Amino acid sequence: MKSGKKHQNTKNATIPRKLTGPVLLVGRWDEVPDLVYETQLRGVIPLAYLRCRQEQYLAVPRWEYLRAAKHSAVTRIYIPEMLGVSAARGHDVATMAAALLKKHGIRRASVPQNFPLGVAEELERQGFQLLCAGESVCPGRETKGMGEVRKMTEAQQAAVIAMRSAIDLISRTEIDEKGALRIQGQRLTSGDVKRRIRNSLQEHDCSCPEVMVAGGACGADPHDPGEGPLRAGEPIVIDIFPRHLEHGYWGDLTRTVVRGRASVPVRRMYAAVRAAQSATLAAIRPGVSCGAIQRSAEREFTIRGYSAGTTTGSKPGFEHAVGHGIGLSLHEEPRMRDRSRRLREGNMIAIEPGLYDPVTGGVRLEDVVLVTRDGWKYLAPCERRLEV
Amino acid sequence: MKSGKKHQNTKNATIPRKLTGPVLLVGRWDEVPDLVYETQLRGVIPLAYLRCRQEQYLAVPRWEYLRAAKHSAVTRIYIPEMLGVSAARGHDVATMAAALLKKHGIRRASVPQNFPLGVAEELERQGFQLLCAGESVCPGRETKGMGEVRKMTEAQQAAVIAMRSAIDLISRTEIDEKGALRIQGQRLTSGDVKRRIRNSLQEHDCSCPEVMVAGGACGADPHDPGEGPLRAGEPIVIDIFPRHLEHGYWGDLTRTVVRGRASVPVRRMYAAVRAAQSATLAAIRPGVSCGAIQRSAEREFTIRGYSAGTTTGSKPGFEHAVGHGIGLSLHEEPRMRDRSRRLREGNMIAIEPGLYDPVTGGVRLEDVVLVTRDGWKYLAPCERRLEV
Repeated sequence: MKSGKKHQNTKNATIPRKLTGPVLLVGRWDEVPDLVYETQLRGVIPLAYLRCRQEQYLAVPRWEYLRAAKHSAVTRIYIPEMLGVSAARGHDVATMAAALLKKHGIRRASVPQNFPLGVAEELERQGFQLLCAGESVCPGRETKGMGEVRKMTEAQQAAVIAMRSAIDLISRTEIDEKGALRIQGQRLTSGDVKRRIRNSLQEHDCSCPEVMVAGGACGADPHDPGEGPLRAGEPIVIDIFPRHLEHGYWGDLTRTVVRGRASVPVRRMYAAVRAAQSATLAAIRPGVSCGAIQRSAEREFTIRGYSAGTTTGSKPGFEHAVGHGIGLSLHEEPRMRDRSRRLREGNMIAIEPGLYDPVTGGVRLEDVVLVTRDGWKYLAPCERRLEV
Repeated sequence: MKSGKKHQNTKNATIPRKLTGPVLLVGRWDEVPDLVYETQLRGVIPLAYLRCRQEQYLAVPRWEYLRAAKHSAVTRIYIPEMLGVSAARGHDVATMAAALLKKHGIRRASVPQNFPLGVAEELERQGFQLLCAGESVCPGRETKGMGEVRKMTEAQQAAVIAMRSAIDLISRTEIDEKGALRIQGQRLTSGDVKRRIRNSLQEHDCSCPEVMVAGGACGADPHDPGEGPLRAGEPIVIDIFPRHLEHGYWGDLTRTVVRGRASVPVRRMYAAVRAAQSATLAAIRPGVSCGAIQRSAEREFTIRGYSAGTTTGSKPGFEHAVGHGIGLSLHEEPRMRDRSRRLREGNMIAIEPGLYDPVTGGVRLEDVVLVTRDGWKYLAPCERRLEV
C-alpha cells in the first residue's frame, strides 16, 4: 500500500493538483460527504463508489437501486447480482468494492485519508493497490458552485432566523434581584434557549442537535454546549450550526450577548473580537494565505493586550484557528491553521475569532462568507449587538 | 500491518473473545461511538485514546481539557504539551496518537475496522504495529448495563410519544372526495407529519433528522424517507429513530397505519408482518442464533405466500435482516444477518420485519427489546393498529 503523503507538501499550491487516476470511496453517505458530493445522493446507503476515466460507478444494496437511479446521474448503478456477488455477501463493503474494481479492470485506486483500514486490508489481500491520498480526493468540494451557494444560503438563513429568535427570548426576560433571568416567573435556562433555536431551525428544514448556548464560565470552553440557568451581566455565547435536512449542507453562526449591562472587561473583550473579525474579513481575497488570515486576527488581540496563539492560561486568550471551510462538512478545507494554503475564489469559510477567560466566560462572533473575485461577501448577514 | 481477520471466524462463540492487549482509538466522538463508550464523553473532540493494562488514557486539544477532566473517569488526560507535542502539531491525530503510544511504551495495538487508513499508514511509518481487529474492540458494548437501559428507555419512550402524536395527526384528517387527507382544509403531507414528530422528540431532548413517513409507493423502498401528500387507503410507514441529545443513545420504532379502510392485500401484508414479529420475538432468548431469529421471520412470510430471503421482485417480499443491535450506534452488534452469532442476556435489539410491494407500498413494524435471562422484554411498549 503506497502512501501518497508527499502530496501533503503541495498544500501551498494555489490550485490543488487534480486526481486523475481512479478514486474509490466506501461507506455511508452521512459519514462520507465525498459520496454525497460525487453522487448527489443522500439517505441511500452506497456500498462502494468508483470514479475512473471520467465515469462514475456506484454499487448499492438491491433495495436502494430504484431511489439511487432516480436521484443520481452517475454513469451506472450496480446491485450485488450485477457484479456477480451473491445476495448473502452483498452487504459486505470490501466484497462489493473488490467486485466493482474488478468489473472495470482497476487494480490501483486512490482513497481518502479516512478510508476504513479493515476494507483497505481486505482489498490489499486480494491484490488491489490503494494510494492513500494526502490531498482531498474531491478537490472540487473546496470551491462552491452556484447551486451549492444557494443551498448553503438556506442553511445560513435558518441560522440567522433562529439566532434572532433566541436573542429575542433572552431580551424579553426580567432580571430578578439576584441577577437571574426570568420569563413568566420561571428561570430561563440554556436548555430553554436551545429548544427555541431547534424549533425555529426545524421550521426551516434544518437541524442542529448540538447547538451551544453557553453562559458565563461555560463559555470559557469553546466547545462547551452550555447548561443550567442563564444570568444577567454574563456573556452568553450562542453558536448555531444547522445542517439542512434535504441536501445536507451546513451553516454556522455565532453571536455573544449580555442581558442587561456588560462589565467593562466583557465590553473590552467584545470590542477586541469585533475588531479581530473585521480585520480578518478585510484580509480575505483570493491568493491570500490562511496564515495571513490567522495573523490578522491574532494581531488585533495582541495589540489589545490579550494572548493569542499560545496562551499562558492566566489571561483571556485566543488559541483556536480563526476559521474553517464549510460545505457538506461543518469543518472542511480550507482550514485557517493550514498556514501556507491560499484562498481561492469560491471558497466558503466561517470566520470565528473568540476570547476565552476562565472566570468571565467566552466572547465569539462567527459568520460564513464566500470568497469572491475581489474580496468576500456574507452568505447571510446577521446583526451584532452585545447588550440586549 | 497484520490483520486480525481470523477473529471473524469466532463469531459463533457465545462470548466474544476479550481483547486484552492495548487498544487505540482516534477520531471524533460523533463518528466513533466506541470513544463515547470508553470515555463517557460527548461533545469533546478527543485526538487519541489508548486502553492498556486496565488503564485508559486520552489525548485532547488544550481547550477540551477541563471539560474532559470534569466528565470522564479515564486514568489520565493529556494535552499536546504534556506529550511533548507543540501546539502547532497538536491538532494532528497521527502525531498525537504516536506520542500517546510512545509515552506508554506501546509499539503494537489493536484498532477497529473503521480506523482511518491515513493515520494507520503514518503510525506504521513511525514503526508502530497495528492489528485491525476482526471483532469489536469494545465487546462490552453488546450487552447493556442498567445505566444504559435507562438511557435507551428515554430515547425509546420519546419515540413512542412522537409516534402517538403522528398517528393522532393522521387520524384527525378528513378524507376528501379524491382520497386526499386534509386538515383544516390543507392537504396533509409527509413533511407535516415529520415536523410533528421532530417537535415532539425535541420536547424530550431527542433528535431524528432523517425520520421516515413513507406513504404508498414510497414505502416500497425500506429506506425511502417519504415525501409529498398522504392519501387515504394507502399504508404509511412511520419509522422514528431518535438519538438522545444528552447521552447519545438511540431508540428505534416503526409503525404502519392506513387512514380509513385498508385494502385486502394491505390487511394480509399487515397480518403477515404482525405474525412475523410475534414469531421472531417468541424465538428470542440467550443462546439462540441470529440465523434462527431470521428464519423465524422468513418462515412466517413464506407460509403466507410471500417471498423471503431472495426476492424475485414480482411479488411482495421480505429481503432485509429482521433486526439489529442498537445502543450508541443505531445499527450495531449483534446483527441478525450474522447467522452464526448467538444472542446473549443484555443484548438490545430492534426487531423489524417488513413486506414491500412496488405498487402497494410497504408494511413494517419495529420494536426494541432487551434480551433477558429467559426471554425478552420491550424497551418501551407501543400499541399497534393498522386502520386509524
